[in-house]
Amino acid sequence: MQSKEVLRFGMVGGGLGAYIGDVHRKGATFDDQAELVAGCFSRDYEKTLSTGKAWGVDPDRLYRTADEMAEKEGAREDGIDFVIIATPNYAHYSAAKAFLQNGIHVVCDKPLTFTVEEAEELRDLAEKNGLLFCVTYAYSQCAAVKQAQMMVKNGDLGEIIMVSAEYPQGWLAPEDVGNPWRTDPKMTGISNCVGDIGTHVENTVSYITGLEIEEVCARLDNFGVNRTLDTNAMIMVKYKNGAVGNYWCSQVAIGYDNALTVRVFGTKGSLEWRQEEPDYLKVTMLGGPQQIWSRGNDYFYPEAKVMSRIGAGHPEGYYESFANLYLKFTSALLKLKRGETLTEEDLDFPDVKAGLNGVKFIHRCVESSQKGSVWVKFN
Amino acid sequence: MQSKEVLRFGMVGGGLGAYIGDVHRKGATFDDQAELVAGCFSRDYEKTLSTGKAWGVDPDRLYRTADEMAEKEGAREDGIDFVIIATPNYAHYSAAKAFLQNGIHVVCDKPLTFTVEEAEELRDLAEKNGLLFCVTYAYSQCAAVKQAQMMVKNGDLGEIIMVSAEYPQGWLAPEDVGNPWRTDPKMTGISNCVGDIGTHVENTVSYITGLEIEEVCARLDNFGVNRTLDTNAMIMVKYKNGAVGNYWCSQVAIGYDNALTVRVFGTKGSLEWRQEEPDYLKVTMLGGPQQIWSRGNDYFYPEAKVMSRIGAGHPEGYYESFANLYLKFTSALLKLKRGETLTEEDLDFPDVKAGLNGVKFIHRCVESSQKGSVWVKFN
Amino acid sequence: MQSKEVLRFGMVGGGLGAYIGDVHRKGATFDDQAELVAGCFSRDYEKTLSTGKAWGVDPDRLYRTADEMAEKEGAREDGIDFVIIATPNYAHYSAAKAFLQNGIHVVCDKPLTFTVEEAEELRDLAEKNGLLFCVTYAYSQCAAVKQAQMMVKNGDLGEIIMVSAEYPQGWLAPEDVGNPWRTDPKMTGISNCVGDIGTHVENTVSYITGLEIEEVCARLDNFGVNRTLDTNAMIMVKYKNGAVGNYWCSQVAIGYDNALTVRVFGTKGSLEWRQEEPDYLKVTMLGGPQQIWSRGNDYFYPEAKVMSRIGAGHPEGYYESFANLYLKFTSALLKLKRGETLTEEDLDFPDVKAGLNGVKFIHRCVESSQKGSVWVKFN
Amino acid sequence: MQSKEVLRFGMVGGGLGAYIGDVHRKGATFDDQAELVAGCFSRDYEKTLSTGKAWGVDPDRLYRTADEMAEKEGAREDGIDFVIIATPNYAHYSAAKAFLQNGIHVVCDKPLTFTVEEAEELRDLAEKNGLLFCVTYAYSQCAAVKQAQMMVKNGDLGEIIMVSAEYPQGWLAPEDVGNPWRTDPKMTGISNCVGDIGTHVENTVSYITGLEIEEVCARLDNFGVNRTLDTNAMIMVKYKNGAVGNYWCSQVAIGYDNALTVRVFGTKGSLEWRQEEPDYLKVTMLGGPQQIWSRGNDYFYPEAKVMSRIGAGHPEGYYESFANLYLKFTSALLKLKRGETLTEEDLDFPDVKAGLNGVKFIHRCVESSQKGSVWVKFN
Repeated sequence: MQSKEVLRFGMVGGGLGAYIGDVHRKGATFDDQAELVAGCFSRDYEKTLSTGKAWGVDPDRLYRTADEMAEKEGAREDGIDFVIIATPNYAHYSAAKAFLQNGIHVVCDKPLTFTVEEAEELRDLAEKNGLLFCVTYAYSQCAAVKQAQMMVKNGDLGEIIMVSAEYPQGWLAPEDVGNPWRTDPKMTGISNCVGDIGTHVENTVSYITGLEIEEVCARLDNFGVNRTLDTNAMIMVKYKNGAVGNYWCSQVAIGYDNALTVRVFGTKGSLEWRQEEPDYLKVTMLGGPQQIWSRGNDYFYPEAKVMSRIGAGHPEGYYESFANLYLKFTSALLKLKRGETLTEEDLDFPDVKAGLNGVKFIHRCVESSQKGSVWVKFN
Repeated sequence: MQSKEVLRFGMVGGGLGAYIGDVHRKGATFDDQAELVAGCFSRDYEKTLSTGKAWGVDPDRLYRTADEMAEKEGAREDGIDFVIIATPNYAHYSAAKAFLQNGIHVVCDKPLTFTVEEAEELRDLAEKNGLLFCVTYAYSQCAAVKQAQMMVKNGDLGEIIMVSAEYPQGWLAPEDVGNPWRTDPKMTGISNCVGDIGTHVENTVSYITGLEIEEVCARLDNFGVNRTLDTNAMIMVKYKNGAVGNYWCSQVAIGYDNALTVRVFGTKGSLEWRQEEPDYLKVTMLGGPQQIWSRGNDYFYPEAKVMSRIGAGHPEGYYESFANLYLKFTSALLKLKRGETLTEEDLDFPDVKAGLNGVKFIHRCVESSQKGSVWVKFN
Repeated sequence: MQSKEVLRFGMVGGGLGAYIGDVHRKGATFDDQAELVAGCFSRDYEKTLSTGKAWGVDPDRLYRTADEMAEKEGAREDGIDFVIIATPNYAHYSAAKAFLQNGIHVVCDKPLTFTVEEAEELRDLAEKNGLLFCVTYAYSQCAAVKQAQMMVKNGDLGEIIMVSAEYPQGWLAPEDVGNPWRTDPKMTGISNCVGDIGTHVENTVSYITGLEIEEVCARLDNFGVNRTLDTNAMIMVKYKNGAVGNYWCSQVAIGYDNALTVRVFGTKGSLEWRQEEPDYLKVTMLGGPQQIWSRGNDYFYPEAKVMSRIGAGHPEGYYESFANLYLKFTSALLKLKRGETLTEEDLDFPDVKAGLNGVKFIHRCVESSQKGSVWVKFN
Repeated sequence: MQSKEVLRFGMVGGGLGAYIGDVHRKGATFDDQAELVAGCFSRDYEKTLSTGKAWGVDPDRLYRTADEMAEKEGAREDGIDFVIIATPNYAHYSAAKAFLQNGIHVVCDKPLTFTVEEAEELRDLAEKNGLLFCVTYAYSQCAAVKQAQMMVKNGDLGEIIMVSAEYPQGWLAPEDVGNPWRTDPKMTGISNCVGDIGTHVENTVSYITGLEIEEVCARLDNFGVNRTLDTNAMIMVKYKNGAVGNYWCSQVAIGYDNALTVRVFGTKGSLEWRQEEPDYLKVTMLGGPQQIWSRGNDYFYPEAKVMSRIGAGHPEGYYESFANLYLKFTSALLKLKRGETLTEEDLDFPDVKAGLNGVKFIHRCVESSQKGSVWVKFN
């Protein structure tokens, strides 16, 4: 009955009970630009069936494997326009590759792949096949983060000299938490803490500042109950422009839930953004008082204002950041399908290159730490 | 294709461009328990048509008036299960009445009606016809507000002695804002500020504490550019249990967006909730330090924990509060349709009695202020 | 050995063990403009002796009564220039009167007297005898409060329309606190809570805004364990300029220590000051973001900047507010002794008229509450 | 006239107009345990004379050099008990040495000396001569910092695994600030930023946690206008117990005044202390909510409670931290003079070993950075 054009999408992973799956689904459909029509929601086919039933997916389009799904959907006249890959990390690469090979645009969770080479392969494949590839660093899609980016871009802060960014969580501090999949190298890759949340630090800083990393010096620790991978990391960063960065991420920092915080210092001003109060930006200009900028007010830049969905003082949260990301992605895809040329602004979502940078960041940090926390070139 | 039972709903008001309409629609559909199938989205039929087209509503079910919609949908085999009334205040009463008379359950914006008598009539009609009637005081549906309610209910704070609650906004402070409909008595009723946001104070306090108002003493002022109705109100309250309350609401308080804040003081502890950081609750027990309770953590009561959608530290916001309200309402309605008996817990959403109390609150405050800010009985 | 001129002062009350006595003494001597040379520190002469010994006061100048002290010090060639009265409230009037009659300048704690008539008598006596009279509303002497006053005075906030001020404490909430002297009408007067902290609200608002109270409507309650006097009060205020005020003070508000907070709303901007973070001022101008002004920075007005003792970010606290008050008082007194004319700026400390207003405020609030919380004229 | 025993002290540096001199003098005399009787307040003798006059020091005890003062005061029967050295850094060593050699106890500003060897020499000399030596790391003397220390000491936080500490300032960000003495290597030593404020980070962490540094890896930068020394430093730390630390200090961080912040993470809990709100401690125990502990309340440990001078909610600030430090130092000295044995608790103030550690910290950080930010052993 929908008269406007709506994209069709499928999902790999994210079945009933999977925390992030429903967030993706709600985000992708929030603005009526896409509908879920296919899925391989689990390695367990029964679970795929029950999820599909719950979400109203035609049983014919519920698949046993991502490969099967990629192939069959790629072959259908009314096949999916894009797939969302919301599995644990280990399955990202092969699934993404399969869909790209079948001409299907991809949205994939982060960290993108286990190895740098895999990420590069996906980047090349997407480029070769002319496919959009979005990596769901959703925090960057908050309106206040866009405002932060615009302020840096417009030179409001002067030259950036220093970045302080952190992502403390405490969820792995209790002994009885055991070993969730994120702590298992077979599921998560060579790093747990840097991989899961350090990459968010890297991406958010990169999105806001545009700074490129020259070298990193990292110290990874595995505090808390005995686990294989890191749960805490301190990382010093040199950027190409001469600025420096100080990053910290932790899953054993009692007192914190999801406290991603980015502070950017320039020669004319500074700003701070906190994921837990995503609608606000702390801004100080040289010589002036601290200011609390609140999303939805007129003093935001147009590019950030347009991302505000509801009035100032009515909180937008985590779901809305996913919705923003999917709104940008599906808008670009709709434009592409209409044969229009995509501008840089159209592509203002974290893409496969952002995903590749995240994977590199993980590998460079692990390498640095293993060598005794020495400086390691980023590229 | 949806296999699970899904309710059908229509909407009166809230067409494209109307701020709150889309919030209602997204909230009502957030949990896949309802779909929009009919509408009279505007007094302007062209607008109803374009909105219906954008939202995929069958043109046959787009109506020129609420009365027509009530009658025809009431007569259809597959007619709507419930209607959402999201018009300006003046149209609530007649629309709600029409749907109730046609056997259709109602969700209506607040303040419910212009007069106390109208609200009582709606209450009686809903009761007589056995229909559910929800009034969208959505703030009360945040998980942390539920936690606050449970703490009071369980006696954690001891006997409640004092409430301090306020709702400052600044949006009517600038001279060039002009006269939006909320300031026009024909559209909004006898009060602007108390009607629009004072009622949120009244409802949120009532939902958390269960305290019943005995008397109010109010001072309403019309500060700022020349308008007909109040833009600022101070209200002293005596509750039936001997506790007292101090309320303030304002639309000309520069520095505030939507800063609804409720503080409840008991003989054993106190709590504070702020709408602008809805996931948190400030709690202090006698002799102990202030505590910042964060939604999603295990120390919440089960009744509040279950309302948490995503992990601690990932903000839930305004959309999610509407989704929570609609989840409760549609769950109750689905249960009712299945012939099951509704428990008190099933009916844990703001209902027509809450709506009636809001209208009473407006009238008592206006009366008090007009008589020179004397004490006026609530009932 | 001090070469610069130093004033001599005595103290009534405030002996060893009395909380506030030492604060006065340190405040009065902080800037080397006064030295303690006489005292009647207690009704218990032994305590006066031991206090005098500890503080290095010549035993000849330790007195059994305030009257004796006033008379003898007034008669000495090298008698005290001023006295500090730091007794419980009941003794303020007679002591102050005795010193004024003997030509000695007075600094007295608040609330000034039990009755309005007594306060008026002190005012007249001070005026007649040409004596300085300071009432120790010390909070008003923070640099950030001066900044707030200057902003209002200079019209930065436009016309003031609304004041919201509160002073919640929790110290009388525990049952086992018993009945300290502040709760005993013989020691404290007709009000406990309004008298002790409501007067601070009244004075701080008055100092910042210059608004004069036209009428009050108050509700006093005695919550908590059974005591004679009020422990909680809500007060609505009409000012002469048409603005309104909403005050709340409480000693049974669990979760608060000394949270005096004043918010002032004008047609062009607003500000907020909190006693517990006295170096900061929250300022918002129409259309702009909230700003956190920090004492010690250049953007403060010169009149406030000069009150800053140490650099921005190095907290000044309660002792320093007393020191600021005594610095102003002793500077004025030194100037007076040199025969110079005092300007309005020299007299920028809370004086006997401020003290009188505090006493009036108490009586009007009590009267209003006793009559059923009706409006009562202030003058 | 003082009957109780009072120590005599002199001061080197800190003459009129010197910011920190008056803070020392007020701190040292705050509790009536010491009086200023001698001084060499400036290299400019005229300034020493005028300062001495203003502060009431006998002109016979105003000296042209620290050496002269040390010798003559050491020879007097009524010579000073201790000296306060409040000069720029370059003069600390020679002055401290002179007083130690003349049997006079020393209080000296930080950083203690230019070189590690000098600091070791002072340590040895103080030890040999049985003299007390206090280094004015005053922040550690806030009651809430003592509480933090006691919580770590008592195991409340479990084993410490991670420390995050920072000290951002912005005062050197403006171009027109020029080159104050702190940026001049001849006056300040080999480091500006690490020397002045990095040492506060090091000391406060050390005081709270007792952790000993094993190795550091530092990156020092000289951002902002062209100056010789560092204005920004990131430092990674390994402690002997296996814990790690992440430090950052900056003088070009726009938006900050004096924001020393220490966060300590253990296996059972965490805490945070901020110098700009020194009365509060943020505490979280595993599984529980964040708590805001407020100085003056009963839940503090006795050792910290006793350091609280005024009631909870009445801010204590920078002056009071100096007063606390001098109270501990002079109490220990009075006890020593009475021939009593000093306990560890008596010596709970930053001593010459703390001073030595600070100097080492500076040198290790500079060495690490100069070598390309490699890991450098602390001892």
